[in-house]
Amino acid sequence: MTLRGGLDLGGTKIEAIVVDDANEIRGQSRVPTPTEGGPAAVVRELAAAMRAAASSAGTEISALAGVGVGAPGEVDAAAGTLARAGNLPDWEAVYPLAAELSGDLGIPVRIGNDVRVAVEAERVLGAGRTYRSFLGVWWGTGVGGALVLDGKLWLGRGSAGELGHVVVKLGGRRCPCGRRGCLEAYAGRAAMERTARKAEDAGTKTKLFKIMEKRQRERLTSGVWAVALEEEDKLARNLIDEAVEALGAGVGSVQNMVDVDAVVVGGGLGTRLGAPYVERIADAAQPHLFVDDRPPAFVLTELGDNGGGLGAALLVSG
Amino acid sequence: MTLRGGLDLGGTKIEAIVVDDANEIRGQSRVPTPTEGGPAAVVRELAAAMRAAASSAGTEISALAGVGVGAPGEVDAAAGTLARAGNLPDWEAVYPLAAELSGDLGIPVRIGNDVRVAVEAERVLGAGRTYRSFLGVWWGTGVGGALVLDGKLWLGRGSAGELGHVVVKLGGRRCPCGRRGCLEAYAGRAAMERTARKAEDAGTKTKLFKIMEKRQRERLTSGVWAVALEEEDKLARNLIDEAVEALGAGVGSVQNMVDVDAVVVGGGLGTRLGAPYVERIADAAQPHLFVDDRPPAFVLTELGDNGGGLGAALLVSG
Repeated sequence: MTLRGGLDLGGTKIEAIVVDDANEIRGQSRVPTPTEGGPAAVVRELAAAMRAAASSAGTEISALAGVGVGAPGEVDAAAGTLARAGNLPDWEAVYPLAAELSGDLGIPVRIGNDVRVAVEAERVLGAGRTYRSFLGVWWGTGVGGALVLDGKLWLGRGSAGELGHVVVKLGGRRCPCGRRGCLEAYAGRAAMERTARKAEDAGTKTKLFKIMEKRQRERLTSGVWAVALEEEDKLARNLIDEAVEALGAGVGSVQNMVDVDAVVVGGGLGTRLGAPYVERIADAAQPHLFVDDRPPAFVLTELGDNGGGLGAALLVSG
Repeated sequence: MTLRGGLDLGGTKIEAIVVDDANEIRGQSRVPTPTEGGPAAVVRELAAAMRAAASSAGTEISALAGVGVGAPGEVDAAAGTLARAGNLPDWEAVYPLAAELSGDLGIPVRIGNDVRVAVEAERVLGAGRTYRSFLGVWWGTGVGGALVLDGKLWLGRGSAGELGHVVVKLGGRRCPCGRRGCLEAYAGRAAMERTARKAEDAGTKTKLFKIMEKRQRERLTSGVWAVALEEEDKLARNLIDEAVEALGAGVGSVQNMVDVDAVVVGGGLGTRLGAPYVERIADAAQPHLFVDDRPPAFVLTELGDNGGGLGAALLVSG
């Protein structure tokens, strides 16, 4: 039996898993992503998380065929480098992530884009496996996307899938990317947090930041949003409604252009808010669908928070 | 040598061509599209145009291997039927266009979607032939689109390419399709004419309708718009500026999602306004491109008004 490692490197946490030949999870660990210390600190924590996952699988790093890493930012898979990872500490320049982590662990390391590996995992093992073509909508800190066309991830010239930067409102809200009117300006968790802070500063009442403090978070995590919605916080409700509307427009636009079989919703917020919100996104897309009598299937991720690690492990051949 | 026929069935005119094995045009004719008499009248004019083109090629219909038709509306290529062609007289129901025309001409007839056949012609013979992947932007009465991915037209479940119904402004202007904020609501010639009429009714001065009458047109054709721009008509300028901005947002959105090599601009208005406007669309897309240091090539159709007929002729195997 061959074991492989998968690391999902997020802005908040690192998830490590060990899988077997059947892609069954044999061991798992989770550590917070360092908020300082730059790439070197992140590599140390990636290695520690992987060792802990191996240990929980009753094995050692040296027994793994290799480790895959799903990472945010600009991934050069061939070079094994990561650059411009805005949610990681001091990670602007090109950094040899694969080589450094491989040096630490002593086994081969391959890296891939976080959203793409998660969508690839859904294609092979999850909610996408019954569809020839689908759009992955990764709703989290940002809004990631990936297109599976005829059974393969469509990469374009290497940068396809930037669903978060589909324009939903010409001249609209400023996006964290600096542009105006992007989907992510309305639906990305980071952008929504910024909007919520501005609203609170301007006097709007909200429980969002109290819930955040109570849960000892530094950001409005998906869990914070979910609790605020349960507690019927009006600002949270309005911002989530706006996000759903923007997601509907963005997904509708892409569907009109590519006409895929299905839309698979994942990501931190998508996973946390779950099936009722997949249905809400479908409802919000409906009025924008040109072929409105034949909408794509809208389905929730099946792999949830494990998708990133599972997809990362798929980067390693057994 | 095998000759083939191609018919481009537009809302205003029918273009007929005869091509040889090398896709060189050997004969050509043009007739106005009937504005009444329903599908039967249109079939009569299609047949007449094809006979005239054959005659101008020094041959007869019976010498052609077959005729292809590029048609607007809902084409069922396998069944040879056309439905819901809003710009053709009384053409809502499913009509057996291929069978009727074939019955009249006595040779095989195949039909295809007008924008798709024109984009396919650019792929094989025109501005798209050097690119593996490109987006066709057909700017005319409506805004059509087609994606060529890895050397093939991407059809999705059959309805891909509805670029005109990509949302550029949530809650924005009403589109002829009934939805809100579609690209076509700002950039389609039919929608622009509606907006221009409303503006004139509301007291805005414009030469657009005087130019139209002088040219003995019933609609604001691409030629009318071009003359109005030359004469520096302010309303025409504003509406065209708005159209270009919307096209930039729509094209930028699609590019962010599919990351193709090139954008090929055609259609009635695209062809008439030409290269300077291709550049303007590129400039308007630029601020929306997520990977803004590597924009796709923006190129003008090479086949122009002949693209529809050439593409239609490609539907027939020699």
